[in-house]
Amino acid sequence: MSKLWDKGVQLNQQIEAFTVGDDYQLDQKLVVYDCQASKAHAGVLEKAGLLTSDEARQLKLELDVIIDLQEKGEFEITREQEDCHTAIEAHLIQKLGDVGKKIHTARSRNDQVLTALRLYYRDSLSEIEGLRTHLVESIGTFVKTYGDIPYPGYTHMQKAMPSSFALWGSAFADSMADNGILLSAVSKIVDQSPLGTAAGYGVPLELDRESSASELGFARVQENPIYAQNSRGKFEVLLIHLLSQITGDLNKIASDLILFNMSEFGFVKLPAAFCTGSSIMPQKQNPDVLELLRAKHHVVTACEFQVSSIVSNLISGYNRDLQLTKEPVMKAINITWECLEIAILLFRELGVNKDKCEAAMTEELYATEQAYELVKSGVPFRDAYQQVAQKISGKQ
Amino acid sequence: MSKLWDKGVQLNQQIEAFTVGDDYQLDQKLVVYDCQASKAHAGVLEKAGLLTSDEARQLKLELDVIIDLQEKGEFEITREQEDCHTAIEAHLIQKLGDVGKKIHTARSRNDQVLTALRLYYRDSLSEIEGLRTHLVESIGTFVKTYGDIPYPGYTHMQKAMPSSFALWGSAFADSMADNGILLSAVSKIVDQSPLGTAAGYGVPLELDRESSASELGFARVQENPIYAQNSRGKFEVLLIHLLSQITGDLNKIASDLILFNMSEFGFVKLPAAFCTGSSIMPQKQNPDVLELLRAKHHVVTACEFQVSSIVSNLISGYNRDLQLTKEPVMKAINITWECLEIAILLFRELGVNKDKCEAAMTEELYATEQAYELVKSGVPFRDAYQQVAQKISGKQ
Amino acid sequence: MSKLWDKGVQLNQQIEAFTVGDDYQLDQKLVVYDCQASKAHAGVLEKAGLLTSDEARQLKLELDVIIDLQEKGEFEITREQEDCHTAIEAHLIQKLGDVGKKIHTARSRNDQVLTALRLYYRDSLSEIEGLRTHLVESIGTFVKTYGDIPYPGYTHMQKAMPSSFALWGSAFADSMADNGILLSAVSKIVDQSPLGTAAGYGVPLELDRESSASELGFARVQENPIYAQNSRGKFEVLLIHLLSQITGDLNKIASDLILFNMSEFGFVKLPAAFCTGSSIMPQKQNPDVLELLRAKHHVVTACEFQVSSIVSNLISGYNRDLQLTKEPVMKAINITWECLEIAILLFRELGVNKDKCEAAMTEELYATEQAYELVKSGVPFRDAYQQVAQKISGKQ
Amino acid sequence: MSKLWDKGVQLNQQIEAFTVGDDYQLDQKLVVYDCQASKAHAGVLEKAGLLTSDEARQLKLELDVIIDLQEKGEFEITREQEDCHTAIEAHLIQKLGDVGKKIHTARSRNDQVLTALRLYYRDSLSEIEGLRTHLVESIGTFVKTYGDIPYPGYTHMQKAMPSSFALWGSAFADSMADNGILLSAVSKIVDQSPLGTAAGYGVPLELDRESSASELGFARVQENPIYAQNSRGKFEVLLIHLLSQITGDLNKIASDLILFNMSEFGFVKLPAAFCTGSSIMPQKQNPDVLELLRAKHHVVTACEFQVSSIVSNLISGYNRDLQLTKEPVMKAINITWECLEIAILLFRELGVNKDKCEAAMTEELYATEQAYELVKSGVPFRDAYQQVAQKISGKQ
Repeated sequence: MSKLWDKGVQLNQQIEAFTVGDDYQLDQKLVVYDCQASKAHAGVLEKAGLLTSDEARQLKLELDVIIDLQEKGEFEITREQEDCHTAIEAHLIQKLGDVGKKIHTARSRNDQVLTALRLYYRDSLSEIEGLRTHLVESIGTFVKTYGDIPYPGYTHMQKAMPSSFALWGSAFADSMADNGILLSAVSKIVDQSPLGTAAGYGVPLELDRESSASELGFARVQENPIYAQNSRGKFEVLLIHLLSQITGDLNKIASDLILFNMSEFGFVKLPAAFCTGSSIMPQKQNPDVLELLRAKHHVVTACEFQVSSIVSNLISGYNRDLQLTKEPVMKAINITWECLEIAILLFRELGVNKDKCEAAMTEELYATEQAYELVKSGVPFRDAYQQVAQKISGKQ
Repeated sequence: MSKLWDKGVQLNQQIEAFTVGDDYQLDQKLVVYDCQASKAHAGVLEKAGLLTSDEARQLKLELDVIIDLQEKGEFEITREQEDCHTAIEAHLIQKLGDVGKKIHTARSRNDQVLTALRLYYRDSLSEIEGLRTHLVESIGTFVKTYGDIPYPGYTHMQKAMPSSFALWGSAFADSMADNGILLSAVSKIVDQSPLGTAAGYGVPLELDRESSASELGFARVQENPIYAQNSRGKFEVLLIHLLSQITGDLNKIASDLILFNMSEFGFVKLPAAFCTGSSIMPQKQNPDVLELLRAKHHVVTACEFQVSSIVSNLISGYNRDLQLTKEPVMKAINITWECLEIAILLFRELGVNKDKCEAAMTEELYATEQAYELVKSGVPFRDAYQQVAQKISGKQ
Repeated sequence: MSKLWDKGVQLNQQIEAFTVGDDYQLDQKLVVYDCQASKAHAGVLEKAGLLTSDEARQLKLELDVIIDLQEKGEFEITREQEDCHTAIEAHLIQKLGDVGKKIHTARSRNDQVLTALRLYYRDSLSEIEGLRTHLVESIGTFVKTYGDIPYPGYTHMQKAMPSSFALWGSAFADSMADNGILLSAVSKIVDQSPLGTAAGYGVPLELDRESSASELGFARVQENPIYAQNSRGKFEVLLIHLLSQITGDLNKIASDLILFNMSEFGFVKLPAAFCTGSSIMPQKQNPDVLELLRAKHHVVTACEFQVSSIVSNLISGYNRDLQLTKEPVMKAINITWECLEIAILLFRELGVNKDKCEAAMTEELYATEQAYELVKSGVPFRDAYQQVAQKISGKQ
Repeated sequence: MSKLWDKGVQLNQQIEAFTVGDDYQLDQKLVVYDCQASKAHAGVLEKAGLLTSDEARQLKLELDVIIDLQEKGEFEITREQEDCHTAIEAHLIQKLGDVGKKIHTARSRNDQVLTALRLYYRDSLSEIEGLRTHLVESIGTFVKTYGDIPYPGYTHMQKAMPSSFALWGSAFADSMADNGILLSAVSKIVDQSPLGTAAGYGVPLELDRESSASELGFARVQENPIYAQNSRGKFEVLLIHLLSQITGDLNKIASDLILFNMSEFGFVKLPAAFCTGSSIMPQKQNPDVLELLRAKHHVVTACEFQVSSIVSNLISGYNRDLQLTKEPVMKAINITWECLEIAILLFRELGVNKDKCEAAMTEELYATEQAYELVKSGVPFRDAYQQVAQKISGKQ
């Protein structure tokens, strides 16, 4: 079957490759969501008298068949079909003939894409939330085991004041808790059904949008069809920003541990599986996993930037530019997902070298305490500070 | 008086200019907030027995004097003082002698900066929220006046289906409503008191952090001192991202109106004050204000990117790099503030040219409706679509 | 065979997926380059007395076998092998036994990667340069056919002064010529051989680096091994920036044509193959190819940003973070390549609608000319400008 | 006097603040350049018979007066005047009456801005080039003094192989040399005269553009007026990218030295003037200058990103959005300039702690050498590597 919009003009192959890109592969992630949305849409069409009960039933059954095929890895989207939406409609027409041709009544590929993506985001957010919670627990276990061990707290990458691994681990647990607040807000914003907004200007038919929204488990209907289109890109940037808040924390965890793992510090013991060797230097145990954890944050940030740039300076309504927001949002979700998994594993396996930590607790870390001893005896802080400073610089 | 950390070594002037930058000017915005925080801190020191009641009273009174001076525009921060914190402490020492030297007990410039900024963000968010609400109202008034007027809805920058100014305006009102959800979450995350975390590792003294948090109106205490430091940059990126969600909507409003204002469309009438002329072309009425509204979004986005880049790959704890996050966050707040003001003004003054809009409602906009007429008579949508497509392409 | 650095510890599969990513697929592009570099390296080892002539000959012959296999699409890199370098060495060892084990003498995977990428960049730049030249010619042909046709020049998206398609087309030809200057500089910078710098600190052996550089056609040797490593990321950002200068021009071409193609203007006729339809609106002919041409620029820019962010704040020498620069640089090259191809095709097929253009040449475009008529008769420009402005505003 | 384009409609103050921004202050940097360009333009008008010799002479003399005033800091641009161009023309009209009103003949504010900026860029590039050369010398002196001292070379932030400060310093000298190649190309691209392109579509008068270009010292005329406008933004992004290549190198220098300066390493001795203290910790000597050197790179990169985002998706010809490219390009130039100055100072004052460096040269750094000893005795490298790896892991 031809593409949904094909009116007979042949596109040459080069242009097809240019316009389709990898969409037909990315869309594997959306097949089930599009089938779910199509089932809900069939129900709406039935209610509106645009499908008979029997037609609606046939369509829903066949959409379930596609879901089964997809879950067994047997549903194919060809490059010629361009995306999952064409592939699914083609399947329905092949199996159901004229009934299949009716499923696209009162909708546009635009609202199909929006709906499938929205369902995908909702599931992804839920998985990310699960991993976030899990990570907080994993940090908690680490803190229970190693929290009492002191190590030098740094400011300006210079020894500053005494710290501990309880303080260090909890800092990230707290930060992840705040990420949870953001995640809730993002979920709330994204959780609205665009189904029924068609190409961004509605359709000249009465559709029961509440019923499809409710069947798909959306918290509310996104009423305004122009906003439904304009939220493409907007929601993606928001979602990726949330992800970058999470990977930004992981970036800092990795930055700390790469330093603490240097032989000059030796505060922590990385699990062997987190290290790799060198092809030329037989002695190396490199913290590759942490370096990649550090670096992947920038990939997520670049995804946010890409989407933000693409959608700026465009007028309202769908523009094909938006197609190029699909790959970065999927990439950012996958990366965050795998980075969280790795971080959970990390805190489960991470060790602390108590001897090295204690040896690093050198005298200068206690200079502030010394000043405060003077303060307690009545010396104004500024004078106490000067006295301790002079004592120390005399020594050096 | 010398800088807070000055131990006598002369910095040469070039390095001073390099390290201080414009901070001493930016800090004008923070003077009042730092005084408020210092007053709360004096209370905490009194409770901890580190200040007598009389000392605390003297400090609070003198801090009120500074607030008064600042509000009259008479409080100066010199480049040599580097920031508001040094300037304020210098004032206190000059006026109160040894009592002034005690205010810095049990705190670090780091937590002063964090606290003053946090108070500033809270006020800024509250102002932005006020403007956001105001804008939604302003759009509402516009929709009431002009909402019924139809105009061609575009997809792919091609005439697509009938739209109306009610649909158009409400799209942005709804988007601004969703921004409100995000703003609440950001406010909730930011609304925690860092006061008492000192340089990021606490102080070896018992401080009643709850009391200062409560006096300053914070919803909660940010317990973990490392997280307090690590949230510098993290919160700023988050806050600026919220702002870029807002300016992103304004970017789209401006993009639409610049197009609709072209003589080829003429759908809208910009207020004269929003247009400027050309130095060479006597006929021009240029939509400069809208072009700048469109462009300023990118300045905000660049601010987000700047902060995000600066703080990545850094280890935990304060690093001086963070100083360079102050200017972009202030800039992004100012820009968003002024862009919202302009947008409110815009919707108050914006007119619609009904005749031009109606003239633009050409036949092809109704092709989808024609297809649906066929659908209602029982033709499957795909066949109806092909019939209408052929009819149209036969005409062209 | 195990990975080059494998010393026996089992990595669990999740971590392998995390660290390897898609590198083993991306590396298909590098197989031939790595073989060429390995052949040159075998020659250097022979000269240094580290291989016998026969060993060197065997290695070179077998590397040619791999090149043949690759060109027939028959050389496989498995995920377990991680990259092309391991796959190639594994092949050599399997075929040549101990001789195969000698190829990695006096080199590191790091300088292999650098060298293979450098050769890949050189070829890519040469292809991009070919396309750039071709595009300038293609624009030239368009200008010859349609250059005389006038259309309204715009400033502030408002009709400003008379323009022509000769002026319009040549603007981009000139811009592409300036891109050529930049391309030459980038080529010159990149054209230096890192082979022999090993892991970034050289090797304790005498290697004739000039001879391998010359065999591989490099203009010079990159002497400093630390710089060889530090230029990873630096060169990539530079190269992608060049590409973004090119795609930035294409972004503007697309932006112009999408506007000029709107029915409200109708200045240009897009080739049918450049347009697609809508799944809901039978009448639509959407300029999808141009919209994607516009959008792909942002993907390239995001690639530049990603690489730039990844490599900042890292210390000298190889860090695993750098692995994540490979995908964006390859992506940016591919996108620029395909965008240039599309642009060449575009100018070959683009038509201009003379009638619509002439009809758009309305009176206000000549206001500046009217002012200059007054100037020629002795009126100071400022007064002439005011007179014409008043005349026009009186009419409106 | 009113703004150049003022036709009598009052802009309200808020909108004026919004549209003018800080331009009137930024423009202080452009006053002299605009006067030079205006002098050249007066010559062109005289040649074209649009000014008498006497009028041209009067204008040039008065422009010299303005240059003198500016150099004495006595030329003022008010916010009402908006920019230097209005201020200069106002001065000429006030002093010369009708003759002053003639200077704007045959030009637009657009080509004035372009020309003044182009002259400013040319001077800036020349200054940056001087500092770049100076830095290479400064590094050379450092290498002469400290080059022989060995220190551990790192990969993956792990001790890898022996390095030296000669190797380290030269890496950056070589990188700066490559920056010089890029700088030449950027200079060549930017060095073309836009004067005479007016508002982007030329003027209906014969102007001798070669003569003004030559008087202003430009290498060539930028023939195409549309390209002159389109190169606004394009050239700025290019220029800032060059600057980010330079600051990227400084970012790495700073990253290395901040690490090497940690007490755990102690390889280098920072000059006292480069360090500052802490307001709470009396012992601290923080490398603030290096931290800011590291961070300022990100400000430059953000400037590049800002300009790139602003100009994308805009149609050809001047759009007011471009105004917002002026501040980031000036900021990036200033930052790069001051960072280079600081870096020159740094290498002049930087010391190396030989004892600490030698103490850090621990055994594992020589593992590769050991493997090569085995290789020289005929063991294939892969086997030698395994033998040494086992020996080391046995020890650990």
